[in-house]
Amino acid sequence: MTTAAKKRKRMTIARFAGFCGGVAMAVKGAEKLLSENEVYCIGDIIHNSFVIESLKKKGLKTVSSVEEIPPHSHMIIRAHGLPLEEISSLTKKGCVVHDFTCPILKKIHKDIIQLKRKGHEIAIIGNPRHAEVKAFVSRAGEKVSVISKALDADALPYARCRAIICQSTISGDLFVSLAAKALGKSAQTLVIDTICSDAKKRRKEAVALAKKSKMVIIVGDSKSSNTMTLSVIVGKHCAVALISSADEVKKNKIRYPLAIVSGASSPRELVLDIARKVC
Amino acid sequence: MTTAAKKRKRMTIARFAGFCGGVAMAVKGAEKLLSENEVYCIGDIIHNSFVIESLKKKGLKTVSSVEEIPPHSHMIIRAHGLPLEEISSLTKKGCVVHDFTCPILKKIHKDIIQLKRKGHEIAIIGNPRHAEVKAFVSRAGEKVSVISKALDADALPYARCRAIICQSTISGDLFVSLAAKALGKSAQTLVIDTICSDAKKRRKEAVALAKKSKMVIIVGDSKSSNTMTLSVIVGKHCAVALISSADEVKKNKIRYPLAIVSGASSPRELVLDIARKVC
Repeated sequence: MTTAAKKRKRMTIARFAGFCGGVAMAVKGAEKLLSENEVYCIGDIIHNSFVIESLKKKGLKTVSSVEEIPPHSHMIIRAHGLPLEEISSLTKKGCVVHDFTCPILKKIHKDIIQLKRKGHEIAIIGNPRHAEVKAFVSRAGEKVSVISKALDADALPYARCRAIICQSTISGDLFVSLAAKALGKSAQTLVIDTICSDAKKRRKEAVALAKKSKMVIIVGDSKSSNTMTLSVIVGKHCAVALISSADEVKKNKIRYPLAIVSGASSPRELVLDIARKVC
Repeated sequence: MTTAAKKRKRMTIARFAGFCGGVAMAVKGAEKLLSENEVYCIGDIIHNSFVIESLKKKGLKTVSSVEEIPPHSHMIIRAHGLPLEEISSLTKKGCVVHDFTCPILKKIHKDIIQLKRKGHEIAIIGNPRHAEVKAFVSRAGEKVSVISKALDADALPYARCRAIICQSTISGDLFVSLAAKALGKSAQTLVIDTICSDAKKRRKEAVALAKKSKMVIIVGDSKSSNTMTLSVIVGKHCAVALISSADEVKKNKIRYPLAIVSGASSPRELVLDIARKVC
């Protein structure tokens, strides 16, 4: 390629592209277990079909509920965490539970339990169908509320003392706007920004790159909440192509200068594969 | 008056009209002291010219700063409270300080000091020129901010941990809207509704009466923050006449059904005097 052509095809790969720490730990842990045992997981271990396929080949069995796991099996709690009731059912079944819940989410679990003990009613801003939020809800007591839209905030019952936290992958703007809606519904409201610091770093870098690019490729899966939030945020600044495998590159009309970023569940190798296809 | 005329002049006096507990305590305390000593007060003891005039006749001396109070004098801290530095200066001058700070505000002072000790940066929503807010500010540490409008919230520095409280007399809507503006400026935000419970009861009753009336007379002074907030809230439902003495009744075109409510610094006798003039 000539220098002029290279200049035309200017491309930057984000520093924070590839697995986040929590995902890396879960995938590495699963691989180690699979070398010795048959292992079950409720739901996709991470939201990336590339990785899921590879682990499936190594023997990982993905099921959708506790009932599908045979007694005394080895099972993985994926990075999103699991509701307490499900962990308890698995233990009762004699399963060997390997807990790969992301440490950042584990810290939030602890905080939720402590906030509940201190007498707070807990409200979680996020998607009630997301595994992470279900795990939060199970630890938050009977008076928990999930707020996914303004109407949910309007419908909150009045509380003397409420703590508001959020799904770790939602956008900061959505968190603040929904928390603001809920403020008038309690005499004392503790609003804790539980958005993942890794996600914040990725977003900050992605926005900086988007401002200097005509297009940003976001490597990730549409099932992944952090990837979709990244996509919305980046989309405010330039064109976005959401790509989950190197094969999908050819479907997209690539524009330069280009930047490549990734969601937290996309391996760095996939990001580099895609970069090779577009440079 | 005929029955028909009486019906035409239908009037209700609010149950919660007259002094609030804090004001009653300060006025009663001042009267007792004045029977024995010359007494000084920084700023109007309460925001009601009727009461101030009466206490002035009994010997109360209202000054505007610590410097104007002679050493070793008796002095009153009015219901709004006083900044710590001024109390300290008065003590150094050998003054006998009689503290009539409203117990509700004293509780907020304690909370502010505790919140500061726990590492919160404190933001106070209210009027920075109001005596109550000045007393809060003096207890809130170096990193305190006062938010009186949206721009102040936008200008807040980012804090790891912030507590937001408010002037006890502002409207709930203003408090929530300005606190909401400040939410994105800290990782953890504790929002405490410190609006006075007496003010809330008055507002609730006044709105209920306003909805059944063509006019509401609000007995109180335009200097009084709780009276002015009451006036704004009631004004959304019917005509309002702000009247601070019985002589002012004749200036207003009274409409019936009429309700009479009052700010926290208006004595019940004044409310009844005004009621006699309009019935």
